Amino acid sequence: MELWGGIEAGGTKFVCAVGSGPDDIRAEVRFPTSKPSEAIPEAIAFFRSQAAAEGPLAAIGVSCFGPIDPDPRSPTYGYVTTTPKPHWAHTNFVGALKAALGLPVGFDSDVNGAALGEHRWGAAQGLDTFVYLTVGTGLGGGGMVNGKLIHGLMHSEMGHMRVPHDLHEDPYGGWCTYHGDCWEGLTCGPAIEGRWSTSARDLPPNHPAWALEAKYLALGIVNIITVLSPQRIIMGGGVMDQAHLFPQIRSEVVRLLNGYIQRPQIQEDIDLYIVPPGLGNRAGVVGAIALAQDALTEAQRV
Amino acid sequence: MELWGGIEAGGTKFVCAVGSGPDDIRAEVRFPTSKPSEAIPEAIAFFRSQAAAEGPLAAIGVSCFGPIDPDPRSPTYGYVTTTPKPHWAHTNFVGALKAALGLPVGFDSDVNGAALGEHRWGAAQGLDTFVYLTVGTGLGGGGMVNGKLIHGLMHSEMGHMRVPHDLHEDPYGGWCTYHGDCWEGLTCGPAIEGRWSTSARDLPPNHPAWALEAKYLALGIVNIITVLSPQRIIMGGGVMDQAHLFPQIRSEVVRLLNGYIQRPQIQEDIDLYIVPPGLGNRAGVVGAIALAQDALTEAQRV
Repeated sequence: MELWGGIEAGGTKFVCAVGSGPDDIRAEVRFPTSKPSEAIPEAIAFFRSQAAAEGPLAAIGVSCFGPIDPDPRSPTYGYVTTTPKPHWAHTNFVGALKAALGLPVGFDSDVNGAALGEHRWGAAQGLDTFVYLTVGTGLGGGGMVNGKLIHGLMHSEMGHMRVPHDLHEDPYGGWCTYHGDCWEGLTCGPAIEGRWSTSARDLPPNHPAWALEAKYLALGIVNIITVLSPQRIIMGGGVMDQAHLFPQIRSEVVRLLNGYIQRPQIQEDIDLYIVPPGLGNRAGVVGAIALAQDALTEAQRV
Repeated sequence: MELWGGIEAGGTKFVCAVGSGPDDIRAEVRFPTSKPSEAIPEAIAFFRSQAAAEGPLAAIGVSCFGPIDPDPRSPTYGYVTTTPKPHWAHTNFVGALKAALGLPVGFDSDVNGAALGEHRWGAAQGLDTFVYLTVGTGLGGGGMVNGKLIHGLMHSEMGHMRVPHDLHEDPYGGWCTYHGDCWEGLTCGPAIEGRWSTSARDLPPNHPAWALEAKYLALGIVNIITVLSPQRIIMGGGVMDQAHLFPQIRSEVVRLLNGYIQRPQIQEDIDLYIVPPGLGNRAGVVGAIALAQDALTEAQRV
């Protein structure tokens, strides 16, 4: 049974795991996303020690915070590109891993990685067109269309779409340093805290924060539905640990669409259409293992 | 050389053509989209007379106003489904054509058809992920991701996304009967006329209508870019005949993105990123011919 290494490289922490699949994770470590010269060697050391203990790894996968360059034809393939995160802009992440480990490396956005994991083992099995959203310290979205991860020009940056914002109802100007009140700027965890001066974690379920949060999340979901017509939308991340958000979001999406998209998946089975990750909060690192599997397949094909 | 039949079935008129490709259209007719019992037989009669004159047709393609059911596995495949257009809801369009002509029939949304035509012969050649928008009596969007037309749950309905609408700057409530001020409701030709009490055609290029129109169109384009990361966006339709809109839209898209998507296609070459159709106003009917070609390929494959 082949062993894979996965890195969920988030904006605040790295989660590294080694295993043969989601039900056989042999080891896992977490450490801060300090700077590349510390975090990347720490990940490499973990994989080396695991290979020594468990046997050689077949490939490594990285689900990475962004923006990144996932285009294998590009000279900056495998880089974290223009992130505002200190020390990380223009970091050759894949190059560092390949040089140290000599293995195929799969590399994609954090949300595309999670989407691939959900497709292989979670809530998107058997679908060809779906979206994976994470709402936490930011809001990211990725997914598949026609059975392949969305890349096109680069990768999705769904958090930065614009949605209606009634400044009389909600005078909060938004959290995004680039766009103010874009979708992420209105909905991510820091935006909730900025608006209500209380951590999202400490807001009770009946607080008006949540109806407003559900409304904004539904507006963006409606835009995703109208643009790429997904067969399902999976929502993870720290904010979505507030499970009471799901029914509020679902009913708001149905209300906003107002019967225009007449598909039973939306009109009758919305509870199965907007769902939490099948892999729970392991979607990220398990998705990185799925990226590793595909990297080996690709390396063998070339 | 094989001959194909194409129907661009728009909300107001049918355009039917017979030819071997975009540079060899043998005949074309236009007539109103009256009701199915009149328009569909008129199209059938045209194809029969053309087959008698030019030789047998290999297949028919239909680029159709919607919503439609383009899923071959569905019991209502080939239907116009829930359109508010009188007489047309729940019309078995493909069934009627197949029964009368005995040919393979390709069927997709008007904008997916046009997108396929642009991919084969127009402004999207060589791309795998792009969007085709038409702004006219409505606003529709379709396109390809990963080299195939977008379907997923159904097909895109991009006109019905929600965008920011400042009611102080623009108190017009929107044209859409389902959603009021959705993207289409704010930008389509009838919305321009409803807002300014003047036909879009009669508004001079320096009228403030156009800066507002460019702003709304740019907001939706930003949402499309963030959701599906297209390599190019093609804009056709009657409203886009106002060529002065293109530079206004491009600069507004760049302004709204604010440097977040650092790709040369957007930051340096926006003039090649947001473009008119390579096939001009023939994208619709030529796209229908491309759908016919694919229908024959599919029929031979099965």
